[in-house]
Amino acid sequence: MSDTDLTQALKVIETLSTGTLTTQLLKRGLPSTFIAGVHPLNPDAPRFVGLAYTLRLIPKREDKMSPDTVTSPLYPQRHAVEDCPPGHVLVIDARGITETGTLGDILVARLQARGVAGVVTDGAMRDTGAMMNYSIPVFCGGRAARNSHVDHLATETQVPIACGGAAVFPGDVLFGDEDGVVVFPAGLAAELAADGARQERLETFLQRRVLDGAPIAGTYPPDADTLAAFEKWDKEN
Amino acid sequence: MSDTDLTQALKVIETLSTGTLTTQLLKRGLPSTFIAGVHPLNPDAPRFVGLAYTLRLIPKREDKMSPDTVTSPLYPQRHAVEDCPPGHVLVIDARGITETGTLGDILVARLQARGVAGVVTDGAMRDTGAMMNYSIPVFCGGRAARNSHVDHLATETQVPIACGGAAVFPGDVLFGDEDGVVVFPAGLAAELAADGARQERLETFLQRRVLDGAPIAGTYPPDADTLAAFEKWDKEN
Amino acid sequence: MSDTDLTQALKVIETLSTGTLTTQLLKRGLPSTFIAGVHPLNPDAPRFVGLAYTLRLIPKREDKMSPDTVTSPLYPQRHAVEDCPPGHVLVIDARGITETGTLGDILVARLQARGVAGVVTDGAMRDTGAMMNYSIPVFCGGRAARNSHVDHLATETQVPIACGGAAVFPGDVLFGDEDGVVVFPAGLAAELAADGARQERLETFLQRRVLDGAPIAGTYPPDADTLAAFEKWDKEN
Amino acid sequence: MSDTDLTQALKVIETLSTGTLTTQLLKRGLPSTFIAGVHPLNPDAPRFVGLAYTLRLIPKREDKMSPDTVTSPLYPQRHAVEDCPPGHVLVIDARGITETGTLGDILVARLQARGVAGVVTDGAMRDTGAMMNYSIPVFCGGRAARNSHVDHLATETQVPIACGGAAVFPGDVLFGDEDGVVVFPAGLAAELAADGARQERLETFLQRRVLDGAPIAGTYPPDADTLAAFEKWDKEN
Amino acid sequence: MSDTDLTQALKVIETLSTGTLTTQLLKRGLPSTFIAGVHPLNPDAPRFVGLAYTLRLIPKREDKMSPDTVTSPLYPQRHAVEDCPPGHVLVIDARGITETGTLGDILVARLQARGVAGVVTDGAMRDTGAMMNYSIPVFCGGRAARNSHVDHLATETQVPIACGGAAVFPGDVLFGDEDGVVVFPAGLAAELAADGARQERLETFLQRRVLDGAPIAGTYPPDADTLAAFEKWDKEN
Amino acid sequence: MSDTDLTQALKVIETLSTGTLTTQLLKRGLPSTFIAGVHPLNPDAPRFVGLAYTLRLIPKREDKMSPDTVTSPLYPQRHAVEDCPPGHVLVIDARGITETGTLGDILVARLQARGVAGVVTDGAMRDTGAMMNYSIPVFCGGRAARNSHVDHLATETQVPIACGGAAVFPGDVLFGDEDGVVVFPAGLAAELAADGARQERLETFLQRRVLDGAPIAGTYPPDADTLAAFEKWDKEN
Repeated sequence: MSDTDLTQALKVIETLSTGTLTTQLLKRGLPSTFIAGVHPLNPDAPRFVGLAYTLRLIPKREDKMSPDTVTSPLYPQRHAVEDCPPGHVLVIDARGITETGTLGDILVARLQARGVAGVVTDGAMRDTGAMMNYSIPVFCGGRAARNSHVDHLATETQVPIACGGAAVFPGDVLFGDEDGVVVFPAGLAAELAADGARQERLETFLQRRVLDGAPIAGTYPPDADTLAAFEKWDKEN
Repeated sequence: MSDTDLTQALKVIETLSTGTLTTQLLKRGLPSTFIAGVHPLNPDAPRFVGLAYTLRLIPKREDKMSPDTVTSPLYPQRHAVEDCPPGHVLVIDARGITETGTLGDILVARLQARGVAGVVTDGAMRDTGAMMNYSIPVFCGGRAARNSHVDHLATETQVPIACGGAAVFPGDVLFGDEDGVVVFPAGLAAELAADGARQERLETFLQRRVLDGAPIAGTYPPDADTLAAFEKWDKEN
Repeated sequence: MSDTDLTQALKVIETLSTGTLTTQLLKRGLPSTFIAGVHPLNPDAPRFVGLAYTLRLIPKREDKMSPDTVTSPLYPQRHAVEDCPPGHVLVIDARGITETGTLGDILVARLQARGVAGVVTDGAMRDTGAMMNYSIPVFCGGRAARNSHVDHLATETQVPIACGGAAVFPGDVLFGDEDGVVVFPAGLAAELAADGARQERLETFLQRRVLDGAPIAGTYPPDADTLAAFEKWDKEN
Repeated sequence: MSDTDLTQALKVIETLSTGTLTTQLLKRGLPSTFIAGVHPLNPDAPRFVGLAYTLRLIPKREDKMSPDTVTSPLYPQRHAVEDCPPGHVLVIDARGITETGTLGDILVARLQARGVAGVVTDGAMRDTGAMMNYSIPVFCGGRAARNSHVDHLATETQVPIACGGAAVFPGDVLFGDEDGVVVFPAGLAAELAADGARQERLETFLQRRVLDGAPIAGTYPPDADTLAAFEKWDKEN
Repeated sequence: MSDTDLTQALKVIETLSTGTLTTQLLKRGLPSTFIAGVHPLNPDAPRFVGLAYTLRLIPKREDKMSPDTVTSPLYPQRHAVEDCPPGHVLVIDARGITETGTLGDILVARLQARGVAGVVTDGAMRDTGAMMNYSIPVFCGGRAARNSHVDHLATETQVPIACGGAAVFPGDVLFGDEDGVVVFPAGLAAELAADGARQERLETFLQRRVLDGAPIAGTYPPDADTLAAFEKWDKEN
Repeated sequence: MSDTDLTQALKVIETLSTGTLTTQLLKRGLPSTFIAGVHPLNPDAPRFVGLAYTLRLIPKREDKMSPDTVTSPLYPQRHAVEDCPPGHVLVIDARGITETGTLGDILVARLQARGVAGVVTDGAMRDTGAMMNYSIPVFCGGRAARNSHVDHLATETQVPIACGGAAVFPGDVLFGDEDGVVVFPAGLAAELAADGARQERLETFLQRRVLDGAPIAGTYPPDADTLAAFEKWDKEN
């Protein structure tokens, strides 16, 4: 897929829902694509889509950490903030620990300034009072003021990671909405965009029928008559 | 209790609070009536009351599930959506798994269209972006796009279930507000409505006294003087 | 530290953030000061500061509890509500159990009427529909209608307790904001206020630079040039 | 499959291992067949095989339980102990609660006297001091003296249940060894016995090679040469 | 109850089982008496009985702990080891944290030398390789080398505590066997000893009948005929 | 440190205990060195020491896994088994999931044949019936027959990992006994061996005194007189 095609597919995907994506992925034999327990910090701006840039945190080890090393631009946490490309999504493996922050408001401000598309972690965020008003979507497992270094040591960027029970590979697509975050190989973006968009048009049509009183049987999933009615409606809209 | 009496009792109960109900139930030797960890998806419409219609999910088993069987109108999840009577509450045992959806927006739209009074699950809901705007109250343990079939197999409707650590029997009363959901035998509805309403009038009276500076001693619980003052106030209002 | 100095320090601290405080405490060798998993019930009024008044709950034991003893003004839960001094914060060790309430709306109304500065528990609150509109900040681990006595027995006030994984001693300072609650010895209040206020001015300055495009390197942490620029800016503002 | 064929298949399966069975089931598209966290109480007698007889426990509810009802021969827990056929395995859904007993030594003695092949629960067992010396294999998630009725209400026998994260249907085969318990449809028993027995002969052969110094590559999985050597060895033994 | 009577009652209780005790306590309205998840370190010597001497641990706080304070004979952990009376049981509230030790082999050796009857904690023990051969029964939630001070601060002895989900008051009776540990008020010891001993004689009788083929109905619970047969048997033995 | 010095230091360390090592590490400012929840499969052979060879598992992702890739000698799990040097310890990050196996008996047989010193994982082992009789020490968080590929994807060897809440770097020393496993930088081995050996001689001396009736005060920690007596005893032994 060309970069342009990918960009276009992601634009479509951003208008869909994670529910639609997980259904399309399940049909393709990929049930393990949902990052669980991760929700938008700012309820008014919950959507993002972009390619994954990964950061891995392991438990702290005092001999590897000094005040200087953990604030150095070379420290993987700091490096990630400068290195994550604009339009990409920084995704952080925090081993699901929600009692400790992974990033604070200044580092996330830098990500926003650099045009990063979103931040996702199964850990917590710090300074969330300030961060809740940022335009960059931040999805996390919790809010906590405890300093990252109390529990975590950042070791690597751009390696495969675990996040919310799902595997995330650098360059995967991440898409988040109110339900959480879905992750999938970028090579599937075009077909997911096409089939997902059709699925959502169909579900919009079905949902109207349902709200108008149609029963589940014959409607969801649609039988031949319902599908024909949808095709007609779909052409007209 | 006649159906009319029950209906009238439920109307009263809907104006009370789950805190009042658990207190009344505890006085009757029923401490195990609170469904824990289940909260309203739509914070603007948190209340519902109705009789329980139950659905049980167990772990998935591939030999029992095909794309056809799990979308058939006979599949218990789908059957429940059509069979739950108007005014009843669909309550789903999802074994407390909040990483996976149990129902999505189309099935819940159908429940709303059919006049079902509410949905309760200790699992998650999918498509919550859409669902948050529905008028039907939805109480759940979380939000997640992961498809139901990835973790669950629906086996039965209208059997006793576990939900949020409480037992729910078909025909029990379910009542939900901001604190969560309380469940109790329908046969108690009339006395709970009467005694609960009195308790809330008393607590309204006591709370005013407290906010006016009355100490806990003599007020909560009320002594004879406070009770007498309440009885006078209660008659006048 | 005199009472006046402490009061003045707390006024400053209330304008800071828990993120700033945990950083200052970490620099002083105190990493274990964050009460995790405790968030404001009323999102519109999340801040408080005050000295800790503690209440300890242990598992219920039927032979120690009768309807009379647990509602007596001598019962530690009731005693705490009357005894916690105005301007102090009532903090309750509920062993992290979020399925059961620790206080309801009348007891919290009394705390508010008495001028108590806040309530913190790693357990749940009851009657949260009403309580969400109170002016007194309430931080808790959850919402639940289950009665306190179903799980808890209040045994003591004003002893050291555990709350959200942190130790809290009577007379410690508690400060809460959107991230949660930080706890520290009152003797540190003056220096934390001074150094924390400077840290926040610096971070405000750095964050503007970052939003204007400055990279992390040289900015966060600031190098000599950035610090000099800050000192100049700080004097001018 | 005739009863005789099934009996013969089960005899073979009992000589295999749960590791072999899960591998064979995974090859057939059945990855969800392992009951996790359930181990033999008596380390000297860990094996059993038999058809599942199920018992379901839900949270206690005081209005459904009196001292008489829960000790009546009609109470599902008691009924199961008399109704589970000889050679079958009683498997109990205890929602993974290991702090409370599900059966004590007298009920398990009755199961042993009746020729039941084993007992499995993801809950705890009581009276384990005595039970550890029984000949009937007992697999459980823990040991606890707390009475069943403090947490559980038995509602049904012979319905599909959850146990240790797996679905169990009445009539499924259950097979347990040191690793835990595997569950699968009885219709697969013959082919699992045949293919599993071959797999174990092959693995015995491979393990000897490995212990004699053979590398993983070419041995595990076996290449054509290794397979040929195995076939020769297998015929000779 | 005189000290002699209590001593005699405890001697009887030590011959019973925790299963019998929880049943007797449940009959007396005391269902909350089981310390869950706590098992004997030495499987060959699992029994003990004695009065509770309590020690409370809260989360560590660096400003309250120096190498000198935590090894001082005045530190509550050390004080407990010298102050727990011979024949009593040291029971430690470790908030269920099994990743960290609470006592090591030298402190437990001192307890043994002083004639203490047992040690119980819902936390872990250290140096368990050595400790497993001690004659003093040690019941704990796990084994771990991590030093107590990494997670815990000992604050008080002889206050009510939580242990394994149960309340323990100083002077309560603690009795442990293979199932775990039961706790109850000392004032009940005599009646529990008498009724418990009769229950065990009855259950021994019933179990023989069951192993000889008697059905549950009429036997467990015993009907009038079975009880009469028991009374006869009981007199003869 | 030369290889010979390291070897000699490790020989000494193997005779000590993990309790001694964590104490020595804590004195050096390294409290985060204990791998929690990991215990020996074979209770008769619990000790090992060696340098860490690491393997990292993340959640499965179907598009990265085929039956061929996960059994290829290039698959990191298989590669690790051939690549871990003799005398080293294979340590596996399984994210603490104890319901799924990480290695089975043939792969561990290969490790044993190759002279690997031990295996450690915070996940489970499969085929533990066979493995329990191996001479190679195996420390794990549980036993489970579920196939590794159902939950895990092996991604890398010889990177820093998390195991049981601790960080493990390739080349760190791992030492395991009955309490669990301790991990530390190899550069500290010589001093830990020397100081640890002295600590254990001292503790042996102190424990005898304690068992002979010495109180904690003056003995543990030792005062000047006790230390002098120890020095004398130490020279004589």
